[in-house]
Amino acid sequence: MRPDTLGVVGLGAVGGSLAWQATLAGVPRVLGYSPLPAEGVAAVRAGAISTIAASARFVLEHAELVVIAAPPTATLRLLEDASRYLRAGAVCTDVVPAKQAVVARAAAVGLTHRFAGSHPMVSLAGRGFAGAEPAPFRGALVYVTPAGPEDTPAREVADFWATVLDAEPVVLDAADHDSVVAWTDHLPRAVASALARASRTDGPRGVTYGVEARAATQAAVTPIQTMRDVLLLNRHAVLAALDDFEGALGDLRAALREGDGRRLEAWLQDAASWRGRLSP
Amino acid sequence: MRPDTLGVVGLGAVGGSLAWQATLAGVPRVLGYSPLPAEGVAAVRAGAISTIAASARFVLEHAELVVIAAPPTATLRLLEDASRYLRAGAVCTDVVPAKQAVVARAAAVGLTHRFAGSHPMVSLAGRGFAGAEPAPFRGALVYVTPAGPEDTPAREVADFWATVLDAEPVVLDAADHDSVVAWTDHLPRAVASALARASRTDGPRGVTYGVEARAATQAAVTPIQTMRDVLLLNRHAVLAALDDFEGALGDLRAALREGDGRRLEAWLQDAASWRGRLSP
Repeated sequence: MRPDTLGVVGLGAVGGSLAWQATLAGVPRVLGYSPLPAEGVAAVRAGAISTIAASARFVLEHAELVVIAAPPTATLRLLEDASRYLRAGAVCTDVVPAKQAVVARAAAVGLTHRFAGSHPMVSLAGRGFAGAEPAPFRGALVYVTPAGPEDTPAREVADFWATVLDAEPVVLDAADHDSVVAWTDHLPRAVASALARASRTDGPRGVTYGVEARAATQAAVTPIQTMRDVLLLNRHAVLAALDDFEGALGDLRAALREGDGRRLEAWLQDAASWRGRLSP
Repeated sequence: MRPDTLGVVGLGAVGGSLAWQATLAGVPRVLGYSPLPAEGVAAVRAGAISTIAASARFVLEHAELVVIAAPPTATLRLLEDASRYLRAGAVCTDVVPAKQAVVARAAAVGLTHRFAGSHPMVSLAGRGFAGAEPAPFRGALVYVTPAGPEDTPAREVADFWATVLDAEPVVLDAADHDSVVAWTDHLPRAVASALARASRTDGPRGVTYGVEARAATQAAVTPIQTMRDVLLLNRHAVLAALDDFEGALGDLRAALREGDGRRLEAWLQDAASWRGRLSP
């Protein structure tokens, strides 16, 4: 769908970028709301939105498509508002990186026929509207997860990502999504943080960390509250992936303990050839 | 020391770069030997060395400073040749990234007074002489580890790195070196490989890995044999660092299992602030 009026609740890096790119793509009216008034002002000054809304409710009552671009806990709360105030015929989505909890809440508040989740796989460096970019979703993978058996909302949301924002939506069941992103996103971030955390607690002080160590821990710099909420929302899939990861560590430990060069080499070779097939 | 004749045994990315940068820095004679004849030809064509030596022995007999720039096991073997053939008054070093085993071998073959280990902390992307660069050591941290109580060789080797190659040598006991690099280099590489290995074995197929996952696994692409040898040489320090790393993972698992948001947030915050203090 190509809405005449798009609503964006939350004007941080993701919501701000989404509003901005939609405006540049010619959506005639983009209503934006942020609980932080300065973010709304920054967004309208940048030309990212056409109108600052006074409340999330105003956005829900006036837009044909509403994107809730809020942190996970706030998103779960806003779904209740959406069930009450979403305009007749309008569709709603969100951008939380874990989806089972979100679609379960949407179903619980009766939004099944008007909601599908979204998870745009983009990495924005900044925070708040200051971290928004004018077109980060072009070509980006975006998972769209239905909230129930009805597939119209997912089709409309996916179509919005594709036609308005030039992204590459993939419709996926929320449970499948969560176990995929546990591997492709949450586990790598958790491992990077664990390495940083161990280095801080047990590592040597005042030494220089090389480029490999800096790459391996890079994802530890993250918006803490969002990461906490996402890991908690997706904890079952993350714990299962952690089990497998610790299995790989166990193989390494065994090879090292036994001084088994052949086994260690095969282990390293498997890892290198898997990684070699991804982009640099 | 600023040698008139520098010898380099091994003309791969590290040895080739070292010879090349020394030549550009005005060392009058740079003898290079590679067991692969094509590497010697490539090095002399690039102007990285002045003379191709026919054997490691020739280099040891003719240079004032010999750098053994070979893989770990070959280096341990070449130290025996050095004990036999190193010219009177000459000094020898190596570039293996784990040092206790190397200095122990140097001491065992009677090289204590003529040897100090080196570990230049540079990251060269390519392999073989094709991966050599003309000046990668400028400003680089280089650990220099004495092989015994006599400090002259370490002083001379450190002075070579500083005055000829413009690097920043730090003289450090081999045991301290090994536990430092277990943290700053070997553990991060091992963790990146474990994540890649687990993803290959247990992760979903045909899915897209984001920028954080690619950074976290980047170090898994590594020269396999060297990495295997280095991890085995330094396995005690690496296993100890792995213990601490698994402790940090255990804290994460406990916080996730109990759904303890406060504990998880503090854990993530510690990791983020440690990482935030390193360069990007």
